[in-house]
Amino acid sequence: MFACVGYGAASADSTLAPFSFERREPGPRDVKIDIRYCGVCHSDLHQARNEWRNTVFPCVPGHEIVGVVSAVGADVTRHRIGDRVGVGCMVDSCRECEACKAGLEQYCQSGARFTYNSPEADGSGHTFGGYSRAIVVDQDFVLKVPDNLDFAAVAPLLCAGITTWSPLRHWKVGPGQRVGIVGLGGLGHMGVKLAAALGAEVTLFTTSPGKVQDGLRLGAHRVVISRDAEAMAAEQGRFDFILDAVAAQHDINAYIALLKLDGTLVQVGAPEEPLPVSVFGLLMGRRSFAGSLIGGIPETQEMLDFCGEHGITADIEMIRMDEIETAYQRMLGSDVKYRFVIDMETLPQAA
Amino acid sequence: MFACVGYGAASADSTLAPFSFERREPGPRDVKIDIRYCGVCHSDLHQARNEWRNTVFPCVPGHEIVGVVSAVGADVTRHRIGDRVGVGCMVDSCRECEACKAGLEQYCQSGARFTYNSPEADGSGHTFGGYSRAIVVDQDFVLKVPDNLDFAAVAPLLCAGITTWSPLRHWKVGPGQRVGIVGLGGLGHMGVKLAAALGAEVTLFTTSPGKVQDGLRLGAHRVVISRDAEAMAAEQGRFDFILDAVAAQHDINAYIALLKLDGTLVQVGAPEEPLPVSVFGLLMGRRSFAGSLIGGIPETQEMLDFCGEHGITADIEMIRMDEIETAYQRMLGSDVKYRFVIDMETLPQAA
Repeated sequence: MFACVGYGAASADSTLAPFSFERREPGPRDVKIDIRYCGVCHSDLHQARNEWRNTVFPCVPGHEIVGVVSAVGADVTRHRIGDRVGVGCMVDSCRECEACKAGLEQYCQSGARFTYNSPEADGSGHTFGGYSRAIVVDQDFVLKVPDNLDFAAVAPLLCAGITTWSPLRHWKVGPGQRVGIVGLGGLGHMGVKLAAALGAEVTLFTTSPGKVQDGLRLGAHRVVISRDAEAMAAEQGRFDFILDAVAAQHDINAYIALLKLDGTLVQVGAPEEPLPVSVFGLLMGRRSFAGSLIGGIPETQEMLDFCGEHGITADIEMIRMDEIETAYQRMLGSDVKYRFVIDMETLPQAA
Repeated sequence: MFACVGYGAASADSTLAPFSFERREPGPRDVKIDIRYCGVCHSDLHQARNEWRNTVFPCVPGHEIVGVVSAVGADVTRHRIGDRVGVGCMVDSCRECEACKAGLEQYCQSGARFTYNSPEADGSGHTFGGYSRAIVVDQDFVLKVPDNLDFAAVAPLLCAGITTWSPLRHWKVGPGQRVGIVGLGGLGHMGVKLAAALGAEVTLFTTSPGKVQDGLRLGAHRVVISRDAEAMAAEQGRFDFILDAVAAQHDINAYIALLKLDGTLVQVGAPEEPLPVSVFGLLMGRRSFAGSLIGGIPETQEMLDFCGEHGITADIEMIRMDEIETAYQRMLGSDVKYRFVIDMETLPQAA
């Protein structure tokens, strides 16, 4: 074991603070990563505050991790010391079930091992995430980061990027299709960039007139203000595919009505309460309402490679580690364009 | 025009009674059909009582029609006098939109012309359905009925049959798949028969222990009582496809949880109020909740041909025309196994 410093929450009602803990030394198949940047996902806040009522404390959040390989186990073949790498929401899975064999480890039938708040494989405790100096991960769950991309701005691709990429690819979004992206936050801004780069005609739906220019700058071809009933009515039946990245309660039927025959609306935001769905809206046009959860390891690598080829990264705002509580507050007010990333150089040397 | 007798509702609060009206003489592309039997669909009752608030009165319901061709227009090539034919929920559509060109006339972008309660093409009024002596329909919307099938028991295939067939085919149900059918009524009993004939392993979900034996007799391989929480829990994550034929409010999340990775639940029953859908249930397993509305003309013919090959018809209870109100009452109490069919010989000669 080696001593590691990070930032963690001691309990649901404590703020995040410097925290010392131990991580395992790299085993034969492990990669040790010196963490450089970590994105701030809304899930981090949910977990730190036990809002999903399953947090094991102390909790070290963070699953949008990029860093440099500092050590490798004897059997590691995929990564070398000095490589720029990333780790997303998962650090392991059973590898044997149908989902794992299909490269969809996020749907592992035994439950994927998540980067934080999951039981450790050896029963020694639970996983600690990327708000920390270093992490040790099985080589198969370590992604390669293209050399040409800004390192800090890659971090959010490991969750916000793959969460939008996976459904865009699964539902075969591409040229000739009209795609809607609902909500311009951390997920939505990646959805706009990726759908546009995949060749679709992209329409952003936002409640905020102040986000129109940004939507266009990020790659949307059109922006519709979703509070404008007339504008929404004009969009009915036009869309092949809609990616809904809104985690708050909202009227999903208003978006299902925008789908054309056989269109699909995929929810990647996760509202806590059930959404009332009008069955007539689904019947009329054989429409589908689906969900999608992050993405598998092979498609995460595919997404990173695609971003390298197209020069795509997240729009980020860099923060110091000790600014995390302020960042959470601003995130709750949707006051971030479009993802906070923590500079791990600002971690204290010791807790 | 020719005089036609039928059974109709004069207003939302009047019972059905003998009714005289006129139909057009067959035009060059029309087929005149001597109606022999007409199935009784729940929609008939909804429309007769204006429960969807769009009924034009007087209303002659009926869209599960079988009969014998008694006259054809000069340009009719597909049907001959004496043929056994059927007419379902539609009698025309625009034929030019994307949906019509794909053989999915039920999703016609201009709106399909339904068998009753739709404006007539010539602006002369609205369409009258199959609770009547005869009907005149464009040849393209007239289906051929296989010779080997009991004629009366074919009638329900024109709505209950195609409504279940269309999604089973669209979502490619077949051998090696686990398929759930929810609800054993008019639609559900056809869903069980057709899914089993398509080679799937069929599990019927019903609230009624009294329907277990019938479910197995109709072709289900397994029956689960949906009020048994333990039995339902044991089914989680097992199903490739679920066809939900329940029109009443019910807990849809309990069925979405039964789907495996990438599984789809298709609603063909149409509850009036929106169904609350848990987004987590969709995210976990990339599941889809979809809707499907009756079926197109080519797939209706395909279904009838398939039923001919497999000897499939509906389980029916024959009634006289003047028993229709009693039949509606029994239908409301789910007291029918599994579809009422009206013997049109029992229509009065004049109203």
